[in-house]
Amino acid sequence: MASFQLDTIYLDGLKDLIQNKKDKDLKKQLNDLHYADIAEIIEQLELSQSIYLVKLLDSEKTADALAEVDEDLREKILQQLSAKEIAEEVEELDTDDAADIIAELPEERKEKVLSQIEDSEHLKDIRELLKYDDDTAGGLMAKELVKVHEDLSVLKCVNAMRKQAEEVTRVHSIYVVNAKNQLLGRLSLKDLLTANSRAIVKDIYIPKVDYVHVNENVEEVAKIMSKYDLEAIPVVNDQKQLLGRITIDDIVDVIKDEADKDYQLAAGISNDVEADDTIWELTRARLPWLFLGLLGGLGSVFILKDFESIMTQPKLRSLFFYTPLIAAMAGNVGVQSSAIIVQGLANDVVKGSLIDRLFKEVGLSLINGFILAVFLILFGVLLGQEFVLSITVAISMMGVIVVAALIGTFVPIVLDKRGIDPAIATGPFITTANDIFGIFLFFFIAKEILGF
Amino acid sequence: MASFQLDTIYLDGLKDLIQNKKDKDLKKQLNDLHYADIAEIIEQLELSQSIYLVKLLDSEKTADALAEVDEDLREKILQQLSAKEIAEEVEELDTDDAADIIAELPEERKEKVLSQIEDSEHLKDIRELLKYDDDTAGGLMAKELVKVHEDLSVLKCVNAMRKQAEEVTRVHSIYVVNAKNQLLGRLSLKDLLTANSRAIVKDIYIPKVDYVHVNENVEEVAKIMSKYDLEAIPVVNDQKQLLGRITIDDIVDVIKDEADKDYQLAAGISNDVEADDTIWELTRARLPWLFLGLLGGLGSVFILKDFESIMTQPKLRSLFFYTPLIAAMAGNVGVQSSAIIVQGLANDVVKGSLIDRLFKEVGLSLINGFILAVFLILFGVLLGQEFVLSITVAISMMGVIVVAALIGTFVPIVLDKRGIDPAIATGPFITTANDIFGIFLFFFIAKEILGF
Repeated sequence: MASFQLDTIYLDGLKDLIQNKKDKDLKKQLNDLHYADIAEIIEQLELSQSIYLVKLLDSEKTADALAEVDEDLREKILQQLSAKEIAEEVEELDTDDAADIIAELPEERKEKVLSQIEDSEHLKDIRELLKYDDDTAGGLMAKELVKVHEDLSVLKCVNAMRKQAEEVTRVHSIYVVNAKNQLLGRLSLKDLLTANSRAIVKDIYIPKVDYVHVNENVEEVAKIMSKYDLEAIPVVNDQKQLLGRITIDDIVDVIKDEADKDYQLAAGISNDVEADDTIWELTRARLPWLFLGLLGGLGSVFILKDFESIMTQPKLRSLFFYTPLIAAMAGNVGVQSSAIIVQGLANDVVKGSLIDRLFKEVGLSLINGFILAVFLILFGVLLGQEFVLSITVAISMMGVIVVAALIGTFVPIVLDKRGIDPAIATGPFITTANDIFGIFLFFFIAKEILGF
Repeated sequence: MASFQLDTIYLDGLKDLIQNKKDKDLKKQLNDLHYADIAEIIEQLELSQSIYLVKLLDSEKTADALAEVDEDLREKILQQLSAKEIAEEVEELDTDDAADIIAELPEERKEKVLSQIEDSEHLKDIRELLKYDDDTAGGLMAKELVKVHEDLSVLKCVNAMRKQAEEVTRVHSIYVVNAKNQLLGRLSLKDLLTANSRAIVKDIYIPKVDYVHVNENVEEVAKIMSKYDLEAIPVVNDQKQLLGRITIDDIVDVIKDEADKDYQLAAGISNDVEADDTIWELTRARLPWLFLGLLGGLGSVFILKDFESIMTQPKLRSLFFYTPLIAAMAGNVGVQSSAIIVQGLANDVVKGSLIDRLFKEVGLSLINGFILAVFLILFGVLLGQEFVLSITVAISMMGVIVVAALIGTFVPIVLDKRGIDPAIATGPFITTANDIFGIFLFFFIAKEILGF
């Protein structure tokens, strides 16, 4: 349903209320909204208006909204808030979001904000989370969870759980630990509701529990959670002590970010930009890849220059008309091959020997190349082009397609083996390499056949 | 953790056991595994071995594994099972997975399998789900959920819930309905555990509940669930009657599939193929896009042919050396621009007027183009190329970049407005259009400047 629809009329109404400082009306109108809707509103208002709203509304509401908005915007808003005000927002957040926001602050403000946090337990948790890297399980987990000791009775367990649950937004599992806080297993709320109240936790808990190490990479965590359809996973240290838990909503964000990043890399964009970023941010993300393309193009200039002499021969110079076609085919085939491999590597489906894969790619590109070559020859006939020239172009194109497919397939595999993200290979990198290589190969084969 | 690691040694051991029909050992070894691990094993074995396992192990275990494996493989396995055997597997599944599997069967087998399902309630639910389109909320939802009547006391509610919960793998929310089965609100298990047992559901339930219409598109459902961080969402009909619920694990799959599809489209691959698909499947997915590229390349042949006469002029013919460079820049810029817009449209961040966006794109490409042009001129100087030629190439390239960026930006926007998936624009479509257009524009501008 999405009962809330942000449209221009609604937004204009809000802007009017802010303009005229109708604080009461604003509070009335916004206090019932979900924080995700407030975040959407904040992203649409002018900066000064957003800051007005953040200061006006209860931190209970705005804290989660602030955690949702785009990082760049959050930075600008937080710059206009005092350390005390930021601390108030942070106190309303779960520890994972709180730590994320504090980690983004400039060094000198971090301590100021931390020193203003009143809840010492919350502060301790946030400080702990700040220690972990962004891209590890520790950087993603929250300290909020419900755990019980193995020796408790179900009745006491329910009581303990009630107390802890007040601070935990969603209870997926109740984790069972021993006296050393080591993770033993889990209990579902369902189990708790159906168990005899005098039973002991030790006797009813499920010892089979998935968990991840605090230093595990987030992409690996995402794979595990989505493979096993988990909604939350506990995080432990080397001693298997329970440190925190990761929930599926954070994993959904990881999966989306990862997909966005790969998509952008394939299109030749770095730095994770958005359509609404500034021209400078967009330039920084795009120019390096264009520069790579330029270098590739200049490489082709050298290759083509080498064949300048055939331009005086009417029979041969037609080869030059085919350079964009050859470059395009080399680029397209390379991108196709690398995209399939990059996805296969990401989903762990690239198995079997390299030799098998090599034969498959060669076979595939020979089939594709042959069909396209036939069409190319037909085109030459229709055009009244000399037959030997058409044949030459067709054969060269097939050669280029095979080589481009091999480059597209093996570059990502080699990168992956060396621990480099293979996603970087798809896109301008492969296209540029294949452009140069394709054009060189094209003229090389043509020279062999036509003997110039 | 991932306590399970599928390696060659493990797999070879399994193959041996299957070869020698060591059924007891196989059962012992596999019965403790998670169904996702069984699915992984099934995908790695020979088909006949997989079928042996499916027939050997309990349906309780294999049903979920079958629901997880790749669709092509599932089809092959199910072909070897009798209608009765398939029905046994289906009975073990939640209604959503059951309906998905039956929907994939050939028409004539569907009824045979359905008629073998013994649980009439399950059968009724599956038949209902089969009515809905794959890409709607109805096609994704399961009938399994926990609901209570608004007039129940908490005590009775707990009892009702206990009974229903036995069939529901994970209880996120308890949905509250009236006598007409209309959705009124929800209760969390947490609320239930903390409420006074004599309270009435009506007095404690939360009336604010997100829901989606049964005909809502799945991508929209994914957006709502990820925006509001929901782990499950109820599905209703026009009368707001509760029909089913969608859980986040299915949404994670939707998000991943969507991302994979967009990535493949950007790379010029259709039909959702994988690295391990057959050569024929891969050809079907790749050849049409290559053919598009070929047509584009042949278009360039015509354009270049028109300028054949300048090949006899040593001063001018160098222009031909730059055609791959121009085509590459046009293609790269176009893909960058369209990728940013396609992602923006997917995440609803493309706002503001078209005029603003136009100015931004022109500004951005002028900056990028200018920097690249300066470099190109320097290159010409180093090469000892005639200055006017370098200037001509540089200016033409800037023109090409601006136009390519505009095409890349506005084609997806126009497609989106017409209800066509804009993701189709990024990749070969834009590259090919920009190749032709870029080369034409390049020679056109050069002709104007150099006056040939």
